[in-house]
Amino acid sequence: MPTSLDWEKLSPDELIEAWPALSDEERQQGFSMLTHEEAPDFISPLSAQDPIDLITTLPEPDQKQWLRLLPPDDITDLVQEAPEEEREDLLRLLDKKAELETRALLEYDEDDAGGLMTPRFAKLRADMTASEAIRYLRAQATQNAELIYYGFVVDREDRLVGVVSFRELVISPPDRNLRELMTTDVVKVPEDMDQEEVSRVFRNADLICLPVIDAEGRIKGIVTGDDIVDVVDEEATEDMHRMGGSEVVEGPYLHAGILELLRKRGGWLVALLLLGFFTVEAMEQFKDTLATELKVLLSFIPLIISCGGNTGSQAATLAVRAMALGEVRLRDWVRVVRREIVMGLGLGAMLAATGIVAALIWNSVLGGDADPRMGDAPLNVAFAVGVSILCIVLWGTLAGSLLPFGLRAVGLDPASASAPLVATIVDATGLVIYFVVAGEILRTLGS
Amino acid sequence: MPTSLDWEKLSPDELIEAWPALSDEERQQGFSMLTHEEAPDFISPLSAQDPIDLITTLPEPDQKQWLRLLPPDDITDLVQEAPEEEREDLLRLLDKKAELETRALLEYDEDDAGGLMTPRFAKLRADMTASEAIRYLRAQATQNAELIYYGFVVDREDRLVGVVSFRELVISPPDRNLRELMTTDVVKVPEDMDQEEVSRVFRNADLICLPVIDAEGRIKGIVTGDDIVDVVDEEATEDMHRMGGSEVVEGPYLHAGILELLRKRGGWLVALLLLGFFTVEAMEQFKDTLATELKVLLSFIPLIISCGGNTGSQAATLAVRAMALGEVRLRDWVRVVRREIVMGLGLGAMLAATGIVAALIWNSVLGGDADPRMGDAPLNVAFAVGVSILCIVLWGTLAGSLLPFGLRAVGLDPASASAPLVATIVDATGLVIYFVVAGEILRTLGS
Repeated sequence: MPTSLDWEKLSPDELIEAWPALSDEERQQGFSMLTHEEAPDFISPLSAQDPIDLITTLPEPDQKQWLRLLPPDDITDLVQEAPEEEREDLLRLLDKKAELETRALLEYDEDDAGGLMTPRFAKLRADMTASEAIRYLRAQATQNAELIYYGFVVDREDRLVGVVSFRELVISPPDRNLRELMTTDVVKVPEDMDQEEVSRVFRNADLICLPVIDAEGRIKGIVTGDDIVDVVDEEATEDMHRMGGSEVVEGPYLHAGILELLRKRGGWLVALLLLGFFTVEAMEQFKDTLATELKVLLSFIPLIISCGGNTGSQAATLAVRAMALGEVRLRDWVRVVRREIVMGLGLGAMLAATGIVAALIWNSVLGGDADPRMGDAPLNVAFAVGVSILCIVLWGTLAGSLLPFGLRAVGLDPASASAPLVATIVDATGLVIYFVVAGEILRTLGS
Repeated sequence: MPTSLDWEKLSPDELIEAWPALSDEERQQGFSMLTHEEAPDFISPLSAQDPIDLITTLPEPDQKQWLRLLPPDDITDLVQEAPEEEREDLLRLLDKKAELETRALLEYDEDDAGGLMTPRFAKLRADMTASEAIRYLRAQATQNAELIYYGFVVDREDRLVGVVSFRELVISPPDRNLRELMTTDVVKVPEDMDQEEVSRVFRNADLICLPVIDAEGRIKGIVTGDDIVDVVDEEATEDMHRMGGSEVVEGPYLHAGILELLRKRGGWLVALLLLGFFTVEAMEQFKDTLATELKVLLSFIPLIISCGGNTGSQAATLAVRAMALGEVRLRDWVRVVRREIVMGLGLGAMLAATGIVAALIWNSVLGGDADPRMGDAPLNVAFAVGVSILCIVLWGTLAGSLLPFGLRAVGLDPASASAPLVATIVDATGLVIYFVVAGEILRTLGS
């Protein structure tokens, strides 16, 4: 634990780590170090639950000090995390302007464009001249506008009609009208657009910020690039956690509570275990044949099913990511099926060939006459295993790439097609394919 | 395919899709539509190989037109993708200034800060006044500086000594010296810093752009927010592809070549199949006991191994993502082990209990006296299965969360600890755990 002598050298990260162990006095010292720019950084790396816990345990004057350091969009995030009954108390600590702004932002879902935006932007009128606009933006800079480098031109009803950059203003003749200078083809997003979609628009538009409008076309706020970087990260983390087969764990890994983790990780694992009972029943149906007639197939069971599972989760991962990036849309599913049939046959052929050769080598190196691993007809067994691999890989590829489409089609998150879910589904079906295909081949050719 | 009548309505995405089918004339029409702002957008969504292919097939005047639309950092990306022998030809098409800038950028690795930056930023001197600085930045705006909203203050040796925002300049007394106005504690990155690390710095610093410096502290360029959004996306995609068990597939899913996909997806699958032969040998060792004495354990094999695989790939995914976000560093491995032992025991207990109850229900619903699924002592069998699940889940959790650390420790990408790799490793070891633990329990208690 750092002593108070270390304050000067402490990075915000170290301060966060040390925080729980600090005395009240040391925490106040921590506050006093933070500038307007640092405060939001200090808040954001903490887990969603943490900062509000920190704040509500502090004496009221400190709470005030904290909250006033933050811009309204960050305050809104904080208040949203607080228990229902404490929200009013927090809002009362704000100055009047910030309170009104925060209350307005609280109306939005935190994952919508409205929940992401800041209301502190600069509005201009189309009949202003360039020099009037520059003067006005300069005045805004001393006040609270987060970004003075773009001016949003609105009509009398506050509807967004154009945008002009500070750069354009300074290089234009000073008496030129904004009407002539502004870009009217403004890239904008509706206030209820999901943040993932907002980040996609931002990425394609290559702008510093995006205006957010309501159903009547009125501008309500702006979303800036640093918010988008956070969204892109957050969405990628959510997708990865889901694809790893757990619920989304918020906040840093080492800060998450054990009970929360058990619930979020355990939920899917329990569900998958229950789903896995289909494999138990599939094995049960073939158990007796496997113990006698088809005993030679026994050893390859885990190999075969993991082969299907791997192919399936790989295909699902690629499809989920392509959908998240907007590279593939729901209506592209036919093109995807066509590609994945080709991929499945190609990968299946590669893996079948590998399997056949590896099985024969395994048989002759570890086995041999004294200890026959693949019975009297190893070639037939290897062939049966190979054909099964081909079929299962084709099936795994198709199932894995189509499951995300199916989930999206019924309105679920494609990323729920997690590697473990696809693997478990392909396991059970793959077993049946193996027993039927390989069994039939061996019964025909003889083992 | 769109006819030339559709030009006005075509989005850049649709233009890209239609591109290969267009005639030369239509492509020229396509060019003429692009503005300075749109050209980089048009390039970036195409796969790494595509845009340079497009450009080199065009007549030289068109190539020139294309290249001149792009800022130097984007030109650099393009030239890097071109075959060695064509690079000089491309560089010669540029105007003198862009050629020099591009040649300088080509010295950097494309995944480094230097490869990411643009050299078009505004330099100021500490002895300028605010009003001189404003006048200078305005003049830069008419030229090529990508961003005039920050001025970077350098000394006589071009070393970065401070930064001042346009906003600060306009709200300051016009005759105030930059020395008094500038922030000297500038967040900056070295030119050879990896882009993933750059994005982490950017995220924590909450800035519009980051200056890039060389070993002597001289400023070489700036990295802007839109570049960072691209990096964050690219890194997340790379991690996901690796974690899905394939090599990184560049460019949009539907544009990737079949042969490239076969190679990138097939490579890992073949390796995992070969690794899977450990499971074949593990089965072989226990085959005879499984066909006779321990036949009752047979049906649970796929369930047990998928349980271990799921737990392992989930733990690996969470660890890989936490490392990518910088939440967990290599030296945190002891803390991670401690947490994951607790998690493994907790999840193991949950899954063991679920497994025991589900097995007993499965036995009594589908089985019963007439068709005994779990032999004469179903309670003993269920208990043996449950204890095995507990052990395997604990092992899977530990193996999955530690593998990424091991990979990073030896200098590999933690994301190579893919779900399929972890699942395959845990499969083979899990089988042995199952046979030994469950076998021992049944031999002691009787099945």
